[in-house]
Amino acid sequence: MAHVKIKVEKMDAFCLEVFQKFGFTKEESRIITDVLLLSDIYGIESHGAQRLVRYHKGIQSGMIKVKSKPEIVFETPVSAVIDGHEGMGQIIGHMAMEKAIEKAKTSGIGMVTVRESNHYGIAGYYAKMACDQGLIGLSSTNSEAIVVPTFGRKAMLGTNPIAIAMPAEPYPFFFDAATSVVTRGKFEMYNKAEKPVPDCWGADENGQTCTDAGHVLANIKSKAGGGILPLGGADELTGSHKGYGYAMISEIFTSILSMGTTSNYNLVNNHGGTCHSFVAIDPHIFGDPEDIKGHFSNFLKELRESPKREGHDRIYTHGEKEILASADRKQNGIDVDVKTLEEMQDCANFVGVDFDKYFGDLGVEIHFDPNEHTQY
Amino acid sequence: MAHVKIKVEKMDAFCLEVFQKFGFTKEESRIITDVLLLSDIYGIESHGAQRLVRYHKGIQSGMIKVKSKPEIVFETPVSAVIDGHEGMGQIIGHMAMEKAIEKAKTSGIGMVTVRESNHYGIAGYYAKMACDQGLIGLSSTNSEAIVVPTFGRKAMLGTNPIAIAMPAEPYPFFFDAATSVVTRGKFEMYNKAEKPVPDCWGADENGQTCTDAGHVLANIKSKAGGGILPLGGADELTGSHKGYGYAMISEIFTSILSMGTTSNYNLVNNHGGTCHSFVAIDPHIFGDPEDIKGHFSNFLKELRESPKREGHDRIYTHGEKEILASADRKQNGIDVDVKTLEEMQDCANFVGVDFDKYFGDLGVEIHFDPNEHTQY
Repeated sequence: MAHVKIKVEKMDAFCLEVFQKFGFTKEESRIITDVLLLSDIYGIESHGAQRLVRYHKGIQSGMIKVKSKPEIVFETPVSAVIDGHEGMGQIIGHMAMEKAIEKAKTSGIGMVTVRESNHYGIAGYYAKMACDQGLIGLSSTNSEAIVVPTFGRKAMLGTNPIAIAMPAEPYPFFFDAATSVVTRGKFEMYNKAEKPVPDCWGADENGQTCTDAGHVLANIKSKAGGGILPLGGADELTGSHKGYGYAMISEIFTSILSMGTTSNYNLVNNHGGTCHSFVAIDPHIFGDPEDIKGHFSNFLKELRESPKREGHDRIYTHGEKEILASADRKQNGIDVDVKTLEEMQDCANFVGVDFDKYFGDLGVEIHFDPNEHTQY
Repeated sequence: MAHVKIKVEKMDAFCLEVFQKFGFTKEESRIITDVLLLSDIYGIESHGAQRLVRYHKGIQSGMIKVKSKPEIVFETPVSAVIDGHEGMGQIIGHMAMEKAIEKAKTSGIGMVTVRESNHYGIAGYYAKMACDQGLIGLSSTNSEAIVVPTFGRKAMLGTNPIAIAMPAEPYPFFFDAATSVVTRGKFEMYNKAEKPVPDCWGADENGQTCTDAGHVLANIKSKAGGGILPLGGADELTGSHKGYGYAMISEIFTSILSMGTTSNYNLVNNHGGTCHSFVAIDPHIFGDPEDIKGHFSNFLKELRESPKREGHDRIYTHGEKEILASADRKQNGIDVDVKTLEEMQDCANFVGVDFDKYFGDLGVEIHFDPNEHTQY
């Protein structure tokens, strides 16, 4: 599929106008756009502009309620529970992490759980919010059940990412990963390329290992059974129960502690009900933040400089690839495939934004065919 | 290798006497014995009586200082940092989790990090301490570097387990797992059985996948390079960077936030320097604990009752296997191999405990040959 490069500033301005046209305030649109663009800039394309269609469809169907405001329904000096009232995930998530940060700054630790939200973009964005203020940030979300538990054949868990960010030199530690072995996006890439997926990635409708990406994706879409495997694959021998366990940790801190919707009821009957969690920890509660940062930075350096596997010349520490991607995207633009561009145009038409004003100079012919596009 | 069954009460009384003879108080010996026996009772034999030799050698060599008392070196209403002064890990760990629980009961959350400790047994014991009091408990520890980072060929990380326990019906959720794909004990089992290990388990001295358990173990022992792979195996394609990331989360909450010894310096020059972390969270800070417990129990039930993979008749939730093992061990005794029994006798002789008083009726001939035994 053809790809184009779009300047970060142009994509930013486009998203900002689109979300305002959807009815979000300028400030809210700024937040939503920031979350989406960080994903693209960090090279996590699956969660950036590619997802615009998901929000477009969610708003159109009424699943995402534009005018909803998140409400704090329970609060202590170290915690809060927020009801998102089915609003936009990014706005709810941003408000929740701000609350966690505020509590960390006064009490040392802040933990906020959220129920009744929607897809909130990359978990790492929220972890980074705390990190940008010198704190340790963690965030997790549950999501539509597309992951089977060990020995199961029905998807009961979301890809349930867990993210953590912590100050370090020369760049922060930033880890954001699904607790499943991969996300749906990876299956889509393999399906497009007509390549079999590794046998630790997917399960068919009988729960058996399945290397046919298209088959697993079709089953996920039609809820025919099977789905993505936990990190560690299909069996205990390779640690499947561990990936399943990390998905459960995500579920505990999102849906369970917020009394919200568990992943197996997420996105059922046009109701998201997505749950998130946000933790901010002030390193002051363990000593001198500069000493801790120095100690951590030194260990990260030792890891990067430790002897490499034959055939490899680099050991990455988490966050390093995102820094490399940032530099590239800011200079060369964001990589967008034509399908995403078509979805962006469709979205622009829907809300009444002049698409050509932003992207008329790209020289790509766009013909939107809804049958070719992912349904949400 | 021949195995015998030993009654829980008999093993308990034996350990209690041995640790008192080592110089620990009765109360301290009670704690150490409890941690070891919970491991055996839960079916995690690798961390129970089998490890007695490790503590024996550690005390003998002076690495574990029997008379050391853990000291709180930094404290806030929600946190503490403890210097273990190279004492016995179980005593330090127990004191640290008690402190975290105390803080959770007054502030809602308690986070305690520990430096300068030694091997503390199973992480899950400490998580369970909080859970037994109606709280959510988490614990993690770093350890001797025997795990390679993704694309590395030198072990830089410990098996760094992360454990979490939370109240639920009909039994608590209990998850305790190394962030590596397996622990060293699994390699030892395969080595004894002369079976090749799965190719996602180990790396040789060049960092390449190695299925020869004996080779990997010998390299670990001689520090010749390679080691165990992170959960997710050797490559990013199978999620290696995720297991490596979870090991880093463990490292952050243990060695980094306590300003302690990172895994790559653990057990160097007869210095343990092991670091731990302990978190207790009172569910009251998110709402009604009974409601939360009910919500969680219901989700766990849905998971267990969800459709099974072809050929499987059970989906486990974490903690279920431990409950099954407990019932068995309490009725039928703990399974101990003859090598462990020999090590127990050697230990008894060293401290002057009458081994036959406890185990003379087992009818097993024991000849201790130090060359056959693991060196620590």
